[in-house]
Amino acid sequence: MVDPVQRTRPRVVIAGAGFGGLQVARGLASSPVDITLVDRHNYHCFQPLLYQVATAVLSPADIAWPVRHILSRQDNVTMLMAQVEGVDRAARTLLTDQGAIPYDFLVLATGATHSYFGHDDWAPFAPGLKDIEDATQLRREILVAFERAEATQDEATRRKLLTFVIIGGGPTGVELAGAVAEVARHSLTPDFKHIDPRTARILLIEAGERLLPVFPPKLSAYTHRRLEAMGVEVLTGRPVVACSGDHVELAGGERIMSSTKIWAAGVRASAAGQWLGAETDRAGRCRVDADLAVAGAPEIFVVGDTAALPPELGPVPGIAPAAKQMGDHVAAVIAARVGGRPAPGRFRYRHAGDLATIGRNAAVVKLGRLELTGFLGWAFWGVVHVYFLVGARNRFAVAMNWLWNYLTRQRAARLITGKPSNPGAPQGPSEV
Amino acid sequence: MVDPVQRTRPRVVIAGAGFGGLQVARGLASSPVDITLVDRHNYHCFQPLLYQVATAVLSPADIAWPVRHILSRQDNVTMLMAQVEGVDRAARTLLTDQGAIPYDFLVLATGATHSYFGHDDWAPFAPGLKDIEDATQLRREILVAFERAEATQDEATRRKLLTFVIIGGGPTGVELAGAVAEVARHSLTPDFKHIDPRTARILLIEAGERLLPVFPPKLSAYTHRRLEAMGVEVLTGRPVVACSGDHVELAGGERIMSSTKIWAAGVRASAAGQWLGAETDRAGRCRVDADLAVAGAPEIFVVGDTAALPPELGPVPGIAPAAKQMGDHVAAVIAARVGGRPAPGRFRYRHAGDLATIGRNAAVVKLGRLELTGFLGWAFWGVVHVYFLVGARNRFAVAMNWLWNYLTRQRAARLITGKPSNPGAPQGPSEV
Repeated sequence: MVDPVQRTRPRVVIAGAGFGGLQVARGLASSPVDITLVDRHNYHCFQPLLYQVATAVLSPADIAWPVRHILSRQDNVTMLMAQVEGVDRAARTLLTDQGAIPYDFLVLATGATHSYFGHDDWAPFAPGLKDIEDATQLRREILVAFERAEATQDEATRRKLLTFVIIGGGPTGVELAGAVAEVARHSLTPDFKHIDPRTARILLIEAGERLLPVFPPKLSAYTHRRLEAMGVEVLTGRPVVACSGDHVELAGGERIMSSTKIWAAGVRASAAGQWLGAETDRAGRCRVDADLAVAGAPEIFVVGDTAALPPELGPVPGIAPAAKQMGDHVAAVIAARVGGRPAPGRFRYRHAGDLATIGRNAAVVKLGRLELTGFLGWAFWGVVHVYFLVGARNRFAVAMNWLWNYLTRQRAARLITGKPSNPGAPQGPSEV
Repeated sequence: MVDPVQRTRPRVVIAGAGFGGLQVARGLASSPVDITLVDRHNYHCFQPLLYQVATAVLSPADIAWPVRHILSRQDNVTMLMAQVEGVDRAARTLLTDQGAIPYDFLVLATGATHSYFGHDDWAPFAPGLKDIEDATQLRREILVAFERAEATQDEATRRKLLTFVIIGGGPTGVELAGAVAEVARHSLTPDFKHIDPRTARILLIEAGERLLPVFPPKLSAYTHRRLEAMGVEVLTGRPVVACSGDHVELAGGERIMSSTKIWAAGVRASAAGQWLGAETDRAGRCRVDADLAVAGAPEIFVVGDTAALPPELGPVPGIAPAAKQMGDHVAAVIAARVGGRPAPGRFRYRHAGDLATIGRNAAVVKLGRLELTGFLGWAFWGVVHVYFLVGARNRFAVAMNWLWNYLTRQRAARLITGKPSNPGAPQGPSEV
């Protein structure tokens, strides 16, 4: 049992130190509770900028920050690095690989992972982008593909190595396609002698009718045009029907030979619903009541990407502001119950807007009736993302890296590290 | 065969893009040769600052830079990421996992790795620090030890987790001991609730009679005192006789329980001598003639940590300036031979001086008759290291990280990444 202190105050256990879990902990800063925050990493990762780690603009440390340090001034929080393995509802403990942790209130904020829509066998060939390890691995694959293309004598192999397929036309897919295009067309160009990185094919494949479906059609069309101007081939209405180590196949039979495929098409909730034995929706998210508690278990809450809200609350997107608002709500409910005050009732989501960046001087922003594109949208996107980063040091480091990238078109973190894990990816030399 | 271009000019193949290999390539910039530079990584790593990656001050990208980019303006160089596997002297090819590369001149600059002096079974328990992967792995082990100490209930386990043993009292051992002490006593202190990181024991163990044997005894004594003032227990004249997952044993029988051991006691040359079937010295270094060519093979040169120079050239230390000077010499020899000019004869090493840093405001510098310690030595050390970094971006990033660390005592790169590989080290949660 991980319970080193004799506790007399209600014990709040939070699983997951993403946007949602962290917000619950912060919201209970002045409540008379003892909080244990559990995460399998020692850091909080700013997921919206992960694609910039994958494309070598930023270093992992620029967008990740030790959870311990974020909460070091909050006396009622203990941080535990551990992997969650389940929940024992009868014993009221969270089960982890570091022992069981007793709770009076439990908050599951364990997020989401990639979903391959029943094709989990594609996962090794088309990795997704959900955490720091994914990002450095993807960076490895993209950079190794250019290295191998430079070394090969075989034209067909070279074409395959220089074809990058991004599957999924949501914000992550758009951001990755734009960033890979910039890597190929600008950052790497002067450095290769036998290949011209500008000849790389970058394809963005979307099953639906248009990119960025949450945005107005006008902004989707703008995004489509801008990506094409950057040299990205955009294919919409084309579901992927097969994926292997060296190709993807589209509905209709077209086969695209490619060594590097990236999955940005869908997410699946973490196992929170299974741990609880609670009802889940089609995406595996755990159903909760309007106050974000699990039916029949008012002491258990689920927030963020792993929560399925009742339909009467309206659609809540899987974005950071939504997770934070859920975190705020749950903190308020717990604080009220602990203080013997009437708890706030139903959660109400306030949608601030949608942002997605495409590339240099190009982004789309939709805030209420305000729509921005081009340089203005891009500058707005940048300021918002720097603002929401945790800590002055990270804001400064990211801003400096962006400034340097903008002025030189160079990417500071072009390092091939780690070991190849994707059997379909171009292999670098093994480490000895 | 990796030889995509029809060559008519002499082919120079360089194995290793460290200080020595890079300098050979640069020195031949204006020679009519075709150079292939082979390295298993895509980057040149500034090894003198690796310990700062291991202790979370710097990110890997701050001290590593793509080799391709460093040499992008030099038209006569092709870079190949490949693992060297041997040399076929009869066929005049360098054998790699990406194919055989024909050469007219071959330069082996493949450096050194850790030496456990016949105790290779200690390697998994006491990892060394030679490349970026070592550094992030060591960072993982140090940070996980504090995480596990915070979570455990068992006092003996906690003591073992909070005991860090650095083996070897040369510059790397001194730098690591000082940096780990600063991590424990300053950077982490406010962030833990159940342990006081300041109670961590940091031991620096040296088999010889004093630390930093290449420095004058007065500076060794200063280093000893400064480390003790920082809370490091310094044990000299105490060889390690056993090492396992949870302890080290010293000559005389003393056993120190410790989860995290770091090896900084010795290096062994790369396999260059074996690849060539040439004579090697006790440290495995390949014997070369006074012009750095291998006996009987005037077209093959060995530079840097993997070369054993003839005794009449005097002692040459295993430091960056020595490798660079050897690289300059070999480039001059090759250029002269290609140009039909008389080649410079014997290599002559010019020793500029020795530097080692201990911690905040403390370093030792010995340049000819000039000796510096304290803040002056430390400032000098910092300026020299920033100056020798490759690229304005890295100089700026390192200087900013140091300034931030100096002002806040925080460390920006406190990330636990990768998977545990050391069976003796404290284990973090496994990735799923």
